[in-house]
This record gives sequence, structure tokens and C-alpha cells, in this order.
Amino acid sequence: MKLPAFFEQDHRLVDAELDRLLPPEKARPPLIHRAMRYSIFAGGKRVRPILCIEAFRIFSDEITSVLPVACSLEFIHTYSLIHDDLPALDNDDLRRGQPTCHKKFGEAMAILAGDALLTLAFERLAAAPIPPAQGVALIKEIASAAGTIDGMVGGQVADLEAGGKQVTPEMLQYIHCSKTAALIRASIVSGAIAGGACPQDLERLRTFGGLIGWAFQVTDDILDVEESSAALGKTAGKDQAQQKATYPALFGLKKSHEFARDLATRAITTLEPFGARAANLRELGEFLVLRRA
Amino acid sequence: MKLPAFFEQDHRLVDAELDRLLPPEKARPPLIHRAMRYSIFAGGKRVRPILCIEAFRIFSDEITSVLPVACSLEFIHTYSLIHDDLPALDNDDLRRGQPTCHKKFGEAMAILAGDALLTLAFERLAAAPIPPAQGVALIKEIASAAGTIDGMVGGQVADLEAGGKQVTPEMLQYIHCSKTAALIRASIVSGAIAGGACPQDLERLRTFGGLIGWAFQVTDDILDVEESSAALGKTAGKDQAQQKATYPALFGLKKSHEFARDLATRAITTLEPFGARAANLRELGEFLVLRRA
Repeated sequence: MKLPAFFEQDHRLVDAELDRLLPPEKARPPLIHRAMRYSIFAGGKRVRPILCIEAFRIFSDEITSVLPVACSLEFIHTYSLIHDDLPALDNDDLRRGQPTCHKKFGEAMAILAGDALLTLAFERLAAAPIPPAQGVALIKEIASAAGTIDGMVGGQVADLEAGGKQVTPEMLQYIHCSKTAALIRASIVSGAIAGGACPQDLERLRTFGGLIGWAFQVTDDILDVEESSAALGKTAGKDQAQQKATYPALFGLKKSHEFARDLATRAITTLEPFGARAANLRELGEFLVLRRA
Repeated sequence: MKLPAFFEQDHRLVDAELDRLLPPEKARPPLIHRAMRYSIFAGGKRVRPILCIEAFRIFSDEITSVLPVACSLEFIHTYSLIHDDLPALDNDDLRRGQPTCHKKFGEAMAILAGDALLTLAFERLAAAPIPPAQGVALIKEIASAAGTIDGMVGGQVADLEAGGKQVTPEMLQYIHCSKTAALIRASIVSGAIAGGACPQDLERLRTFGGLIGWAFQVTDDILDVEESSAALGKTAGKDQAQQKATYPALFGLKKSHEFARDLATRAITTLEPFGARAANLRELGEFLVLRRA
């Protein structure tokens, strides 16, 4: 399956907005801004911003009002990668085919660049050109998804604790849904909030986001086993080397493939009530999971 | 000068609210919640929350609506201490008389606990029981003060870069105003926003906050030279040992005392238009600087 046309268009919109929302390299103190820009422009796929934009498009065409929201999600995702790569955590030297932030700028600057991106995300969210009631609603949604209770940091802690241990399928589900699916779900829900979705539509998209986010992480686990480091742009086989809890380790590759496809199919079914308005979001779900798994 | 009576009352209110707003220790995954609570309840003075509350009181008595804002400032302050203490940054073993977060829980958990506190701050700010327009305004104010452009992270980067070098008075002012004064100013301004202050009053309090925050950092520099480790609850003389840029190093102790007092006096003068309504805030300014410097 080839890359959907809107994907590349959205990608360009997001990259231009990221550039606009980040402080210029020369702004005092320049070193931190160089580190932030280095990690943001190291070649991410912009999955979260594009999911946010396409969820927004179900309800509105005024794309400029959702772009700061979309970019804030990329700031949060990138902060989490910078901190996860640190020597005290995953100790990874390579990310998206390039030296990780701490390899390039040192540990102190990598810690602070992550902190700064997380902080900037909320500054830009609060300044997004949307009604304030929608602004606080989506800040709550995104902060919760990035936090410790069923959120990204909680999943990362559980993942660290599970390293080298035998985990149950329930624990693996908790790790994946918190570490990855929560922010993906929040990307979709926050786009819908910015677009003015009604509560019922928000709930539908929340379900879609949780399922597609989970499928996305299972697919990532599969790719870590099947693909080369060159194709991944990061060290392949790292999960196994670090004895990470993964679906392939627990269920084998065949069952993992089936599981990812089943989750994605269930996710896409929840979009039916939106009809053609959700065509892009459906295509995106298929692209992110079915093409890869 | 003895501790103002309202200071201890506010302190108790803040501690109870911090406990209410933090996830319980038992919540999954417990380790991160233990680390967050450990650092929050390690004995801070709650200066920023109390400044926020007392700025709010100039305009309103409905204290419950400002408490989540006040506590979010303590979450952000504490995250910055946890990360600053890390081996890659200041490498400090002792904070508030107790082992630092990474000494107690390890580096990975300290990095994540800092991340989690910063994230929780914005989640709680977005859920504060205040009108949404005020909510987004104070989130913008606080996130900007915690960020890289004239904010806390920017000041921390400049401070790291200045280590061991001869700095100019202008650079020292930049470091102190960004690293410390910005968040103190935001504490006061956000309290005033939550209280419904008019733009003119916000500007007055912004000036007060900038000056008193700067004076507070100069005083901290002085205390690092003059006090024992036991009295400080952290390693004394550390600034000098690390060749940090400080006022005493640049101007000597006598001039530093004069400078802190002068800043505090100028700050307190800006409160005159508020009359008796700002009595607590004035007393707080005197307590934080004049009592100590």
C-alpha cells in the first residue's frame, strides 16, 4: 500500500508549523534551541500530528487552528524519545538513523531539551487559536495521556520494571496501551475537540484511537524483529537484546501479526458512522498497521 | 523577623492540596508515584504556591479555586530541582536535608518523576475550577516562565554554560531572572489571573514578581556563602566549588546584600496602589528577602 497523498501534504504543513512554533536557533541560549530543533527535525513520520489533523478534518476545514495542537503532540512525542534514549533509560545511540540527542549534545542538554519540548507543547496548546473551553479540554486530555495514570510515563516505568522478567499478557497490554496508545488516542481526541466534535463522536474517536494506537505498538514490536536497522533507522533487535516485554516474545510473530490486524480492523469499524468524512483517518489506520504488519 | 502567621496557614492548605492532587502511592505503577511524592514532601518552603495564593487574595477570597494553580507551581519547581540535581547536571546528593531523588530511586526514575511532575502540573492547571479563558491565560504564563526564552530552562542552560567562566553582570542578570525570577513572577501573575485581576493590576504584579524573584535569587547566592549546610538543608559553598556565576562572586557580599535589599524595596513599592489588600504579599516579600539578606 502506497503512502496516502494527504499524508505527504499534512507532513509538509506540520513541518512548516513546527519550524514556526520552535524558537529560532539563534535565540538565547542558542544551544538548547539547536538541540530541540535537531531532535524535532531528525526525520520523524509525524504520525501523531497527522492523526490529529485528520480527526479534526472530520468536523472542520479550518486547518490553521489545529496545527499548533498537532505540533504540540510532536513536541511531546519527541521529548519522550529524547529522554527514553538517555543512558539511564534505554541507552540508545541511534534514532531515526542519526545520533541521539545526548550523543550529539551531551546528557545535560538532552535532559533539558526534553524538558523544554514538553513545556513548549503546553505553551503552544494554551495559545492555539481555538475557544478557551476547547483549549483547556484538550490540554487536560493530552496531559493525562502523557502522565503516569494509564499514560505515557506510567507505561515507560512499567516497561522498565518489566525488563528481563516474564510478563503476563495483561501487563503487556497495560504497558503498550499506556506507553504508546494513550498519546495516539489523545492525538485523535484532541483534534476532534479542536474541531468541535460532540461528546458521542468524541467517544467513538476515543475508541478508534485506543485500538489503532495499540495496534501501532504491536506492529512496532513486530518490525523490531523483522526489519533491519537500516530500514528502521534505529538499532533493530534491541527489544530482544534488552529483554523487553513484546508481543512477538510472548505470542510469536504469526499471532502478533493476526492480533495487530484484528485490532486495526476493529478500530476502523468504529469509524463507520462518519462515512466518507473519515476516509482519510481510515486510510491512515490501514497505512499505519495493515501495510506494516 | 518571625514567620508571618498566614505563611504557616497557607503552607498547610498547600500541603493538603498537594496530597489531594498527586496520584496515591499505590496507583499503578507505584514506584513513580513514590518518587514524585518523596520529592514533593521532602520539605520545601512552598514559596511559589504561597506567593500565588497571596496574589490571588488581593482580588478574591475563594481560595479553593486557586489551590490547584498554586500546587502546579510547586510541581514545576520540584521537577526542576529533581532534574537539576541529576549527575549530568549539578550532581547533588543532598536536597532539603535528604537524599536527592536519583540517590533514593535511581537516575531513570528521577528523570521520569521530573517529567511526570511537569506533566501533572499542566493536567491540574487545565482542570482548575476557574473560567477557561483564565485557565489558558495562566497556562501560557506559567509554561512561558518555565521554558527556554527568558524562562527557567533557558536560565539553567545559561547557568551551565557560564560555569567556570568569567561572566558579565548582564549575563548574571539574565541567568538569575530566567532561572529563578521568571517562575516566581509567574506564580504571582497566575494567582492574580485566577483572581480576575485587570490588565493594569496584572502589570503591577508582574513588576513586583520580577523584582522580588530576582532579589530572592541574589539572597540565595548570599546564603550559599554565609550559611552552613545544616541550616540550608543542602551542600553549602557548592556555588563556589562548582565555580557558579553568583552575585557574591562578582560583587562581594556587602554589595550583594545592598543589591538584594534595594530590589526588594523597589518591589514592595510597586504594591502601594493595592494598599492594605496587599499587606500579606508585602510581608511575604520582606520575609523572603529582607529577613534573609
